Amino acid sequence: MEVRKESGLSKSGTKVVLPKKFVYFFSANQTDGNAGMKAVLGGKGANLAEMSSLGLRVPPGFTISTEICQVFYDAGERLPDEVKVAAREALARVEKEIGKKFGDNKNPLLVSVRSGARASMPGMMDTILNLGLNDEAVEGLTKASGNPRFAWDSYRRFLQMYSDVVMGMNSTYLEVTMEDLKDSKGYKNDTEMQVDDLKLLVTKFKKQILETTGQAFPMDPVEQLWGAVSAVFRSWNTARAKTYREIHAIPSSWGTAVNVQSMVFGNMGDDSATGVAFTRNPSTGEKLYFGEFLINAQGEDVVAGIRTPQPLRKAEAQKKGLLSLEEAMPVVYTELTKVFDKLEHHYRDMQDIEFTIERGKLWILQTRNGKRTGRAAVRTACEMMDEKLIDGKEALLRLDPKSLDQLLHPTLDPHADKTLLTKGLPASPGGAVGQIVFSSEDAVKAQAGGKKVILVRVETSPEDIEGMVSAQGILTSRGGMTSHAAVVARGMGKCCVAGAGEIDVDYRRKEMRVQGYVLREWDQITLDGSTGEVFLGEVKMLPPTLDHNFERIMKLADEQRRLGVRTNADTPADAAVARRFGAEGIGLCRTEHMFFGADRIDVVREMIMADSRQERLAALERLLPMQREDFKGIFIAMSGLPVTIRLLDPPLHEFLPHSEEEIGALAKRLGWEVEKLRSKVRNLSEMNPMLGHRGCRLAISYPEIYEMQARAIALAVVDAKKAGSQVLPEIMIPLVATQAELAVLRRLVEQAVAEVQRETSQEFPYLIGTMIEVPRAAVTADEIAQSADFFSFGTNDLTQTTLGLSRDDSGKFLATYVSEGLLPADPFASLDIGGVGKLVQKGVELGRQTRPDIKLGICGEHGGDPASIEFFHNVGLHYVSCSPYRVPIARLSAAQAALKQRKVEH
Amino acid sequence: MEVRKESGLSKSGTKVVLPKKFVYFFSANQTDGNAGMKAVLGGKGANLAEMSSLGLRVPPGFTISTEICQVFYDAGERLPDEVKVAAREALARVEKEIGKKFGDNKNPLLVSVRSGARASMPGMMDTILNLGLNDEAVEGLTKASGNPRFAWDSYRRFLQMYSDVVMGMNSTYLEVTMEDLKDSKGYKNDTEMQVDDLKLLVTKFKKQILETTGQAFPMDPVEQLWGAVSAVFRSWNTARAKTYREIHAIPSSWGTAVNVQSMVFGNMGDDSATGVAFTRNPSTGEKLYFGEFLINAQGEDVVAGIRTPQPLRKAEAQKKGLLSLEEAMPVVYTELTKVFDKLEHHYRDMQDIEFTIERGKLWILQTRNGKRTGRAAVRTACEMMDEKLIDGKEALLRLDPKSLDQLLHPTLDPHADKTLLTKGLPASPGGAVGQIVFSSEDAVKAQAGGKKVILVRVETSPEDIEGMVSAQGILTSRGGMTSHAAVVARGMGKCCVAGAGEIDVDYRRKEMRVQGYVLREWDQITLDGSTGEVFLGEVKMLPPTLDHNFERIMKLADEQRRLGVRTNADTPADAAVARRFGAEGIGLCRTEHMFFGADRIDVVREMIMADSRQERLAALERLLPMQREDFKGIFIAMSGLPVTIRLLDPPLHEFLPHSEEEIGALAKRLGWEVEKLRSKVRNLSEMNPMLGHRGCRLAISYPEIYEMQARAIALAVVDAKKAGSQVLPEIMIPLVATQAELAVLRRLVEQAVAEVQRETSQEFPYLIGTMIEVPRAAVTADEIAQSADFFSFGTNDLTQTTLGLSRDDSGKFLATYVSEGLLPADPFASLDIGGVGKLVQKGVELGRQTRPDIKLGICGEHGGDPASIEFFHNVGLHYVSCSPYRVPIARLSAAQAALKQRKVEH
Repeated sequence: MEVRKESGLSKSGTKVVLPKKFVYFFSANQTDGNAGMKAVLGGKGANLAEMSSLGLRVPPGFTISTEICQVFYDAGERLPDEVKVAAREALARVEKEIGKKFGDNKNPLLVSVRSGARASMPGMMDTILNLGLNDEAVEGLTKASGNPRFAWDSYRRFLQMYSDVVMGMNSTYLEVTMEDLKDSKGYKNDTEMQVDDLKLLVTKFKKQILETTGQAFPMDPVEQLWGAVSAVFRSWNTARAKTYREIHAIPSSWGTAVNVQSMVFGNMGDDSATGVAFTRNPSTGEKLYFGEFLINAQGEDVVAGIRTPQPLRKAEAQKKGLLSLEEAMPVVYTELTKVFDKLEHHYRDMQDIEFTIERGKLWILQTRNGKRTGRAAVRTACEMMDEKLIDGKEALLRLDPKSLDQLLHPTLDPHADKTLLTKGLPASPGGAVGQIVFSSEDAVKAQAGGKKVILVRVETSPEDIEGMVSAQGILTSRGGMTSHAAVVARGMGKCCVAGAGEIDVDYRRKEMRVQGYVLREWDQITLDGSTGEVFLGEVKMLPPTLDHNFERIMKLADEQRRLGVRTNADTPADAAVARRFGAEGIGLCRTEHMFFGADRIDVVREMIMADSRQERLAALERLLPMQREDFKGIFIAMSGLPVTIRLLDPPLHEFLPHSEEEIGALAKRLGWEVEKLRSKVRNLSEMNPMLGHRGCRLAISYPEIYEMQARAIALAVVDAKKAGSQVLPEIMIPLVATQAELAVLRRLVEQAVAEVQRETSQEFPYLIGTMIEVPRAAVTADEIAQSADFFSFGTNDLTQTTLGLSRDDSGKFLATYVSEGLLPADPFASLDIGGVGKLVQKGVELGRQTRPDIKLGICGEHGGDPASIEFFHNVGLHYVSCSPYRVPIARLSAAQAALKQRKVEH
Repeated sequence: MEVRKESGLSKSGTKVVLPKKFVYFFSANQTDGNAGMKAVLGGKGANLAEMSSLGLRVPPGFTISTEICQVFYDAGERLPDEVKVAAREALARVEKEIGKKFGDNKNPLLVSVRSGARASMPGMMDTILNLGLNDEAVEGLTKASGNPRFAWDSYRRFLQMYSDVVMGMNSTYLEVTMEDLKDSKGYKNDTEMQVDDLKLLVTKFKKQILETTGQAFPMDPVEQLWGAVSAVFRSWNTARAKTYREIHAIPSSWGTAVNVQSMVFGNMGDDSATGVAFTRNPSTGEKLYFGEFLINAQGEDVVAGIRTPQPLRKAEAQKKGLLSLEEAMPVVYTELTKVFDKLEHHYRDMQDIEFTIERGKLWILQTRNGKRTGRAAVRTACEMMDEKLIDGKEALLRLDPKSLDQLLHPTLDPHADKTLLTKGLPASPGGAVGQIVFSSEDAVKAQAGGKKVILVRVETSPEDIEGMVSAQGILTSRGGMTSHAAVVARGMGKCCVAGAGEIDVDYRRKEMRVQGYVLREWDQITLDGSTGEVFLGEVKMLPPTLDHNFERIMKLADEQRRLGVRTNADTPADAAVARRFGAEGIGLCRTEHMFFGADRIDVVREMIMADSRQERLAALERLLPMQREDFKGIFIAMSGLPVTIRLLDPPLHEFLPHSEEEIGALAKRLGWEVEKLRSKVRNLSEMNPMLGHRGCRLAISYPEIYEMQARAIALAVVDAKKAGSQVLPEIMIPLVATQAELAVLRRLVEQAVAEVQRETSQEFPYLIGTMIEVPRAAVTADEIAQSADFFSFGTNDLTQTTLGLSRDDSGKFLATYVSEGLLPADPFASLDIGGVGKLVQKGVELGRQTRPDIKLGICGEHGGDPASIEFFHNVGLHYVSCSPYRVPIARLSAAQAALKQRKVEH
């Protein structure tokens, strides 16, 4: 759109082409750009322009457009003269607007030089602060601030930053010089350095820079500026930045803009200050200005916490016996509140604002939507609806579904004192305090004795279920977001921190060691399952609050969503909790969890140990009434809603003990030969149990297991109907890879159910379907649909098989993948849409091709993840199923997905 | 096409519709059908019609068409009168043609009643023999055969078969009666029963049938016939047959035909005989009639081996001092040889013929293409080309590529005496004789001492490589067709029987126990790697023969095929063998096998144990020259041909010992702390190593490993070029799941290679590509192709991940899957085209979409499997890569695929 003009030959002899306009000025008085110009100004430049054009007093500056980045490279990494001319013009305007001069020895203009690309590339490119300082300006800064230490410290920092970023000098040299000086003086911290020390350092630094780089440090601020601008452009093409772009598919041609902005200081005396503010209370959502400031201070002083920050409002400050901004600088305070209102109305959301007062003059440095607690988010959304600031749809779209977790679980008081021990994965949200125990048995006993305990294990197994029930929270040193501990804890709505790898758990001594601490049985710790943090001792908790605002939002969400929300629940108790949270049925009832009950695990083991079909049938005969009772309870709890029961899935060895000790104990208890049991365990052991003899493969080998389960389900249907419940059973066959498997097992289930119907003279409708959880099932879903009334995508296993990635083993390297951007997120927490999603989509298409009315759901962990839910909505599933405590999150996410889709369509 | 007529109401009151013609007669004189009428006559009926219409004397009979099957069900499982009328007419013609009468007391007509569907459903439906026997006819059969024992034995068998199949009586009742009689007489075998015993049994059987079923056994042969025909139709809908059809997608509407055929007997006196014949020698391919017969005998006597069968030809019989058919019945012999020539010309292939001579009259019972050894197949094909019976294309299409194995390996003499010990999987073909040893060390020592040994292990690991090299053959009690032992043995062209589960291997006692035998170290056994059989002692071997016929066929194949054939080879020696067999490059060179060399495994372990990058680099520095030498050797052996080197793939724990004992020994040897080594092993251990920290994931964590390998490859290229070789290196990154992984590692490899090119001032071209071996890679191949010059489909791992099936663990249940038809074949041996194949195809399409000239190959075990090769040809790959000894198989298979495709296209 811009007319380009030829700039003639650049110094390097290459012809460069310049756009018509390439330097964009911004100040409260005049601004060339706006928020819509990200392509030209980059993200940061566009935001600065937007604030300025609102008339806010933003420190003036200018942006050199992204187009100049390419020009810079075309010209052989040089700034064309035209750019320098335009930049100098803009600089002159900055000097005029702010009333300071570059290199001035009274009150010098200092600027920051920052990169700013169209897409965010955090930490990838360079920044330079305090540019403009030299031997004269440092005197000016001393005078202006009355603080020689600040001036000289700024100068030595500038020297370090500039020599590193612009002059390419290894930063270690200057660091060593400074460390030597500190050592010689016996200082431990940088803050102990005196003005004379800093002056000495500046001299030494300049000398060292000359010696090392062969170039003198430039005293001319303008020369400094060209150096800094060039360095920012150059930082676009570092190896790190290139790799980052490659991974994130950011075109190299986009280039970065360069932002040059005047710096202002809140430490210029008692008429200066710096602070941060929220337009509403970010913890509670209450509509009151909320913030802190420090007089005669810099931003970093607020963060450092050396001085106690003061509240903005008088009412609040008085409670703490502090001076408010309202009282200290009433004029500025009034101006500030006007800014708050303006910004909240402009952005139609609660704002988080950084400001500086330099000699009585208010400068706005940054504004952004404020982070808030879940409770504050819900309250703010509701109140802004009442204020007609936003409508219901916007209220829904604005909420972060994950933040609802905080409303459902107790949370750690953000203001409480804490001693962090370590950090693991935030496996199941909420907080928990308790005394540590190291075995499930101990947890059960302690709870019976009235104690509150945290169960600490290397990892949990299905045998730990009762211990987990008895504990306040669970902490494991191994396993990921979908490890046994994580999945089960989320199902229970119980706090869990998983895979805290720094913890060394010693079962024999009943000790855990971490960060030099040795914690013994009965020592107290606190878990934050929402962050993965583990704290020493007891941390104060805030109770969960399901208030009317929450109910209002949920109701709004239900009006908007198309996607059904079911729950994963294995017991009537779980089912009841989920129903209270709005679950519309059970999407996954795992029968194996029932097999671990204390009253039946030994019968299960007898079944496994059976040498003949006859013996196996006898054991199954004894399991049948127990399973029948299980299912009956669940059907009654979910009366009127569908219940999907998955037939036995895990490999049989999961039900047997593995250590020599446990094998011996079990054999003794049940009167079995140790050798026989050992040999069975050995015989059933697998190299890759995830890909082994499990799921429907068990039933192909031992059809009698599924026969018993199908029979128990059918009998339970009859029982529950007699008890007055309306039952909608759906029987699900796991791990199907071929249509033949499902055809054979469907017939088996049908026969078992028909037999019960005949015996009881009771007819009832039911569905038979399958999990789609291996890639083969997804790509042959047209065939499989011939035998399936419904599909439920088992995205946990589908993720493992599609990526060839074990969730139990990937903890070691997956973090690197996410942190280095090789994967956008943990694919077990948020669906890998670009890979696994393709197979889900294929499965949906092929399934519908064969059976247009096939029922489609998903029951993996992703059923509670907002981004995944959006995908499931878009791909046309009928429902998601998630753990009970995630049901509200799923309801909100489903509503957001529907709203976003309608937006796209309109 | 047939005009249907209404048959009015059937007995059950349902209206049934009959086709115009539904009973098809066949005899040498007149035949209604032919081989093309399978849909109406079923497979068996069509074949009988074809032979008859050639004018061969086939025992006359008729086929009730498949259409009547549906009619039968529509009529409430009854035969409509029209069918009975037509069948009686046909039966009368049979009586006339063969000169016997139903129920005759002199020479009665007996018939067989057999099912015959359009698609083969082996063993799924019922058959009844000797129909027509009753209390009178048994006397007739006695007179006609002069053999009362035969007549009465036939009668009691008929009673058993009929009461079971037609009357629905549990066959156990009659069996128990017979066992009781045998016990009371002290007989062990059925053959000991005398005429009087059999007569008594017949009386008892008839009585029992009446008592149990409430119906008398029908004496009327026509009534017997309706019963048998109805039973065959009913057998179409047994649960077993239905399930079979469901699995094999055979429409239920096809129905079965019923074949009623007169029976002839070769035991009617010395002018009667029975025999089997081949038109050429099936062992050698020599063009001489080859067969055996017995005078006055039934077919089962030939099979039973009680009497010594006599050769057909005089020349052959004389050598054995036996009487030939040529001499005993010269007229019939001449007639028979004319039949041979006629059939070979008609079917244009070597025939395997069953015949019976009843009272001097020759009857042809069956003809089919004769099974033959690989050598005979190749010779026959070549000679039939010379005889102008077939052309070169047909010669190629007719050969079973797998049978070429026999030409490349020593094979067991089919005529040698053998004592079978057990049967495992035919993991690597050929035969081997040797003394058993139980450890690789012992194998190495024994070979050094001049002994020939068989290495017996529960399973092998990479540490056993040297032992495997030293052994004649390998026997394992665990593991499947793609277990370590199987893969490595095939690579070496060494005989291997894997997964012989009946064998109990006891390392401590150095014993193996199987079937009651206890074999100790140094006992001798023989393996047949082509069948999986294990024999006691030494069995005589035949040497491999690569004769001119073989070379001729290979040359023909090369002229026809489009697909390239490379080899999987890790050493210069393997590469040389493969090149001799016609390999056109290396498709997979696995660098990890090199890591196990005795001279380097400890350095590899140091690298793994390294606590810092620095230590790891030091160890890698020492590995570099070794890898450089490895690669140089391979490049030289493959000069002028491309070599694909896969960078390190397996998880690091594979290089460390696992048992406490081995850990202790290694720690002692290398002077490491046991606890540190143990902890490292524990730390690296994985739940599902197949899906763990391996492949390119290792290089994301430890880039220095691939850096070293890339550098070693580049240096080896320079070395090999200096030595005069032409080098075409292709560097392959394994287990890529995302484009980002490949982008990062591609850059790393490029930098390492560029560095070597700079240092040595040598430029050379090379490719960088990836394995497509997880489903995610296949469905995102368009993205991955951005960073890949080539794809090599790793179908072993792709099969594991697509099916969610561990090849190490599936042995336990996969056999059931294949035998019950849930899978058409072991998916690790023959590609699962319907599932994994879809992902391969997707990968090809998407890869080409991004990079039309992308090089495409496959290097899984399927590269040597004919059916898979046909698929790879059709999907458009450029080459397959297989173990050296499979290269000829692949060449032939590729030619067949090309020929078949052209056939389809024309």
